[in-house]
Amino acid sequence: MSLPDYAALGFTDILVTLDDPIATVLINRAKHYNTFSDKLCTECIQVFDLFDKDDRVRVVILTADPTAPVFCAGADITSGWDRLCHPDASTEGHQVHRDPGGQLTLAIYKCRKITIAAVNGHAAGVGMTALQLPFDLRFVWEGARLTFPFVRRGINPEAASTYLLPRLLGHSRAASLLLTGSTFPATSPIISALYHQLLPIRDQVYPAAKALAHELASTTSQAAIAYTKSLLQHPGKSVEENHLLDSHVFSILVHQSDPKEGALAFREKRAPRFKDTLSTISVPWTSWWRKLDLKHAKSRL
Amino acid sequence: MSLPDYAALGFTDILVTLDDPIATVLINRAKHYNTFSDKLCTECIQVFDLFDKDDRVRVVILTADPTAPVFCAGADITSGWDRLCHPDASTEGHQVHRDPGGQLTLAIYKCRKITIAAVNGHAAGVGMTALQLPFDLRFVWEGARLTFPFVRRGINPEAASTYLLPRLLGHSRAASLLLTGSTFPATSPIISALYHQLLPIRDQVYPAAKALAHELASTTSQAAIAYTKSLLQHPGKSVEENHLLDSHVFSILVHQSDPKEGALAFREKRAPRFKDTLSTISVPWTSWWRKLDLKHAKSRL
Amino acid sequence: MSLPDYAALGFTDILVTLDDPIATVLINRAKHYNTFSDKLCTECIQVFDLFDKDDRVRVVILTADPTAPVFCAGADITSGWDRLCHPDASTEGHQVHRDPGGQLTLAIYKCRKITIAAVNGHAAGVGMTALQLPFDLRFVWEGARLTFPFVRRGINPEAASTYLLPRLLGHSRAASLLLTGSTFPATSPIISALYHQLLPIRDQVYPAAKALAHELASTTSQAAIAYTKSLLQHPGKSVEENHLLDSHVFSILVHQSDPKEGALAFREKRAPRFKDTLSTISVPWTSWWRKLDLKHAKSRL
Repeated sequence: MSLPDYAALGFTDILVTLDDPIATVLINRAKHYNTFSDKLCTECIQVFDLFDKDDRVRVVILTADPTAPVFCAGADITSGWDRLCHPDASTEGHQVHRDPGGQLTLAIYKCRKITIAAVNGHAAGVGMTALQLPFDLRFVWEGARLTFPFVRRGINPEAASTYLLPRLLGHSRAASLLLTGSTFPATSPIISALYHQLLPIRDQVYPAAKALAHELASTTSQAAIAYTKSLLQHPGKSVEENHLLDSHVFSILVHQSDPKEGALAFREKRAPRFKDTLSTISVPWTSWWRKLDLKHAKSRL
Repeated sequence: MSLPDYAALGFTDILVTLDDPIATVLINRAKHYNTFSDKLCTECIQVFDLFDKDDRVRVVILTADPTAPVFCAGADITSGWDRLCHPDASTEGHQVHRDPGGQLTLAIYKCRKITIAAVNGHAAGVGMTALQLPFDLRFVWEGARLTFPFVRRGINPEAASTYLLPRLLGHSRAASLLLTGSTFPATSPIISALYHQLLPIRDQVYPAAKALAHELASTTSQAAIAYTKSLLQHPGKSVEENHLLDSHVFSILVHQSDPKEGALAFREKRAPRFKDTLSTISVPWTSWWRKLDLKHAKSRL
Repeated sequence: MSLPDYAALGFTDILVTLDDPIATVLINRAKHYNTFSDKLCTECIQVFDLFDKDDRVRVVILTADPTAPVFCAGADITSGWDRLCHPDASTEGHQVHRDPGGQLTLAIYKCRKITIAAVNGHAAGVGMTALQLPFDLRFVWEGARLTFPFVRRGINPEAASTYLLPRLLGHSRAASLLLTGSTFPATSPIISALYHQLLPIRDQVYPAAKALAHELASTTSQAAIAYTKSLLQHPGKSVEENHLLDSHVFSILVHQSDPKEGALAFREKRAPRFKDTLSTISVPWTSWWRKLDLKHAKSRL
């Protein structure tokens, strides 16, 4: 593939920079409390699809303009819900509507690179769901006020959050968050386990995420990360099935060059120099899991 | 439906009060250490089935008579196990026995209102399983001593606890609790994540639960709560399937009146006044998940 | 069956002692940093299979020679990966390779006795996966440095760890551990919930595990433990299915002698004297779950 020039894609609601091998996506709607616009959603979906296929990218960080008052205030519902769900949707038959936040969740979840959300401010609604839950790691400011307010707006939580949140934290914490709609500080035991690291000062959040991103980009294998993410997302239905899956992946990866370099670097007590990429790996990417056909469902985006 | 008069139901082992829109169930066997009697079980099943269908009820709290020495001492096994499992049960074929605690677990789990256990004392056995695990939220006294003693009595944990507890806390904590049968204080890291809030004094537990109940009853939508509980209980087998499910629910709910009021109240910076109820919602309640046929299994209650 | 004489089995890489009813397995490769050799793996598989069937054994503890510098430094990859995965494996067709660590994971996971890992030193790689995750309980030294370094070696995590770790800790912590390959102290909130107990001094770890083992061996029922483990490992696909399963197990166990003794001891306020064993229990062991056929997969061990 030709390598995308992210600066030339004409995005307005996000700013994308590639500090090779780390891509940063900045939510760029400070004047609008970084609310979740249609453009923000479609631009993010487009760029995470590109990151997935761009061999240069090893780690992706999503963060917000640090001058914004919040990380993301959620969807803008001051004019109602029509923007999020077309009035005709429910008359078009069963399961034809697809909510925009969920479409973004899938794009981030399916991106095979390391993904990090650097939550440098308060977050609500889709700012908690699509913009945090599908990421591999989350960093947060200790002072952030965090809320899933859906049931207090008369609506259900979206963006696959009823699937992702209980898996991330267990059902005890997920129910406390999704069924109360209360606001919690990031330091609350109800929510703190969602985060890889908590930082006392807002301006430390992105630098801390970037420091780990640099470390991971220079020490981890792109192929090993991609396959490990697949195993975590599709672990098999039993311990036996998972054992066969991870053995199968092992037998594929072991013939690439990264494991040889990994063993050699370990023996020589130095950092590895991994070169395998997802587009050059000698065995085709194997989808061993059942894929759900989403074609009958409408995106509307 | 005609509205039930809970005081007229003739219950003896529980006391039920409806402080509209909050129902409170008080375990009323202080002289018997609040042990789990057949009557306690059948009365609880009956009343949670009623709460599910009574539009006036938005939040249910289960607690114990505060003068009792314990929240619940478990089943009374001083005369053996026959009361819990009829001696003929195993000769009647595969899967015909249904344990009473599990039947109560299902009644509480299927109640579509917000359910809260206010654990204002020590708890053991079924006092930890059926009387706590199927609830949405749990409050507890910090001094409570908590135990799942089943393996120390020669029997397996019941009331669907081997399903619910690992989902609530993860398998590391669930194994520590169910395979040791040890007693833990509520403040132990082994068990504290089971609780939404810990209170230093016994008499604070029910008031704290009731304060949150009042807040939730006046700020959350009955329909949104019911559908969110369904999504948490039946999230679909994959992130894609959950995305289709929550999109479908969204497309149903968005045409009710509660989301309109929720968006309006948000814009006007005031508390919402939600009016949709489960019996008046304009779209029929949709069970999109596979239901397990339990007809061949005997209740005996 | 004739009772095995563990001392006569000729093991070299582990030392096995039966202090009836507690078996201890000592990793015996201190000179090699307790790295995971083929012999260590096959000896452990053999002995956990024996423990499963030996009625004398109620609790199994795995620990390391306390004079070793580490609990387990992982696999020895200084000469590459061929020992872990035969070069021909990937050409032999889909899912024929079975990694050695995963085979040990299955042997430990399927052992129906209480299993405890006493992690009295640093641990890496398979020293975190097969030698910890399939156990029921884990004890650890607070000073232990713990790491799953797979993605930093160019390979995926093995030994069914992508199945077991998210179930034990939730996906938030599992991703932090498996996708960074970072080293964490046992006291880190990222990993501490993996452990039943943390001990400040290395030499306290095995004695603490043994003290609990003695308590559990003398207070828990062998049959109740085995069935509870089965229910935790195979809980059914829904709360209703689990309710039928635990009711079925209850109706089997209640006719054995242990529950009678358990109820009697409870009434008499004394410790129980449980006598049922897995080979004498009057109802045959019931595998109600679907077993995965692994016959087409090669062990190579």
